[in-house]
Amino acid sequence: MKLPHIPSPDSAAAAAAQQRQNNLTKPQGSLGRLEELSIQLAALGKRSVDRKAVIVMASDHGVAAEGVSAYPSEVTPQMVLNFVRGGAAINVLARQANARITVVDIGVNFDFDSSLPIAQRKVMRGTRNMAREAAMTCEQAEQAIQVGVDVVRSEIAKGLDIVATGDMGIGNTTPSAAIVSVITGEPVARVTGRGTGVDEAGLQRKVAMIEKAIAINKPDPKNPIDVLSKVGGLEIAGIAGVIIGAASGGIPVVIDGFISGAAALIACQLAPEVKPYLIAAHQSVEIGHRVMLDHIGLHPLLNMDLRLGEGTGAVLAFHLIEAATRILNEMATFEEAGVSTK
Amino acid sequence: MKLPHIPSPDSAAAAAAQQRQNNLTKPQGSLGRLEELSIQLAALGKRSVDRKAVIVMASDHGVAAEGVSAYPSEVTPQMVLNFVRGGAAINVLARQANARITVVDIGVNFDFDSSLPIAQRKVMRGTRNMAREAAMTCEQAEQAIQVGVDVVRSEIAKGLDIVATGDMGIGNTTPSAAIVSVITGEPVARVTGRGTGVDEAGLQRKVAMIEKAIAINKPDPKNPIDVLSKVGGLEIAGIAGVIIGAASGGIPVVIDGFISGAAALIACQLAPEVKPYLIAAHQSVEIGHRVMLDHIGLHPLLNMDLRLGEGTGAVLAFHLIEAATRILNEMATFEEAGVSTK
Repeated sequence: MKLPHIPSPDSAAAAAAQQRQNNLTKPQGSLGRLEELSIQLAALGKRSVDRKAVIVMASDHGVAAEGVSAYPSEVTPQMVLNFVRGGAAINVLARQANARITVVDIGVNFDFDSSLPIAQRKVMRGTRNMAREAAMTCEQAEQAIQVGVDVVRSEIAKGLDIVATGDMGIGNTTPSAAIVSVITGEPVARVTGRGTGVDEAGLQRKVAMIEKAIAINKPDPKNPIDVLSKVGGLEIAGIAGVIIGAASGGIPVVIDGFISGAAALIACQLAPEVKPYLIAAHQSVEIGHRVMLDHIGLHPLLNMDLRLGEGTGAVLAFHLIEAATRILNEMATFEEAGVSTK
Repeated sequence: MKLPHIPSPDSAAAAAAQQRQNNLTKPQGSLGRLEELSIQLAALGKRSVDRKAVIVMASDHGVAAEGVSAYPSEVTPQMVLNFVRGGAAINVLARQANARITVVDIGVNFDFDSSLPIAQRKVMRGTRNMAREAAMTCEQAEQAIQVGVDVVRSEIAKGLDIVATGDMGIGNTTPSAAIVSVITGEPVARVTGRGTGVDEAGLQRKVAMIEKAIAINKPDPKNPIDVLSKVGGLEIAGIAGVIIGAASGGIPVVIDGFISGAAALIACQLAPEVKPYLIAAHQSVEIGHRVMLDHIGLHPLLNMDLRLGEGTGAVLAFHLIEAATRILNEMATFEEAGVSTK
């Protein structure tokens, strides 16, 4: 597929931000990750992040029929309706962060009323069961990526400084673990966790299903569209599209947990130029998450034992990112404050 | 000294909060530390933390004459004036968090104009040089603790749901390292870091000075007032007082970094009942910080490579704590949202 151009970060702006950080009334480097974030954002032309959005991609997974999740698939549309009514964790945290939410039906196995505030961009009614066949065709995977690009562009058109990625889809830690295993080469058992909370037997079954799906489909680790179509998910493809679309529009992207991490792996393989736009919000409880972040070269900001998804960790991190920009903008320099240097 | 009574947490309120968390529309436990925080706060009767304050204790250190810091002592009053003018990192982060700041001169070697918005509670004009003699008398240490108790009580009287601790005092990582070494029994070299940024030779000198101070003064690890008076600092004593005073008033305390951690060690030894009131904001770059937190049994929320002090990490964590209360208050239950359970 033809991907949009992604602009390079402005190294002169980064150098100027670093220079200013060094003159602010604190020991150099003493605000650690806040200083780094402010410089990363400055390089992307973002001196403030007032206009915030989270895009929550929802879809179903054929592999859920194999009993890989602690919850039934009907929970996917039920939770989408919970998002619409404002009762889910992502609603609470987005309200606190003053971030708008866009919920996208990219492949839920349910027909939502067209009057609801849901972006209805269904590519198919859930993927096929990857333990038996490819989850989708390459065309469907590309179509889902394009949905992500389109949705984030529409957000950018409304005015946007930063975007967070979120997901909803019962069963979606299964394709995410498959993707990280295929792309990084780590054994399935070392990157597969309990998702919403399967027991030990459920975890063994999940690992076996993922191994089977990879053995049957033989995804090509060098071809991210092939990986996505064979062992991926529609929301994962959509989030990869959000990442690529945001970067192409010059917008930094806050990556949530395990599912968004799988999408980031795909996006980075499709378009390595997205990397400077990425901020990893948190370290998930899912064991494969660290493998993903290490592979991309991202260091998470929060370690709060989160494993919910929806974009919750990403939206929680907005505050830290905003703090970084405020430090750079608002602190006094040594000269302004009349404070002695070393 | 006679310490105030500290009420016990309400275990029934904690159980009710846990019960509600289990019924909210997410897998049980999937919001990790946010769920834990909401339960801890519920046990303290705090269902919201709208009224926030940070208390910044400032004082000087006689041991700074030994060249243990990268900055001269004159920076202590200069930074206090920077706090008053709103140009320091703590001002920026407190504005963002909607937290009020109280700056306390508990022992700065400078006479501030009495018209300035500084709580003028000077116990002495900086401690004596602990590498040669006791930093202060036991009476002065107790007086400084009482200042902390008084200041936080005055904040509680204004209306307060949660308080953060902060510090300013050139040289103050030196007494903090001494305190953690004496109380935990860890060798000085294993708990001493670079503070504001001394070089390798400076670090060696700092370790030697702390070892000398402990050898000369022989603080009794079982007697926190003895430790505080011999190798402590006035702001450390004041923060210990803030912790004890807050807990006695039923107010949770967010502990900042290394200096606040030293104060928490002292407070926990003086009054172990403060423990349920403590929240560790972040993991500092200072190597002794983890030793302190492990000794008390606290797990930090943030790991942002901070090493500034002033209360910056604690105020940054307010957002996460507020998120925890909002999750408990605002999320829909499975029943309310019509979402299927496992």
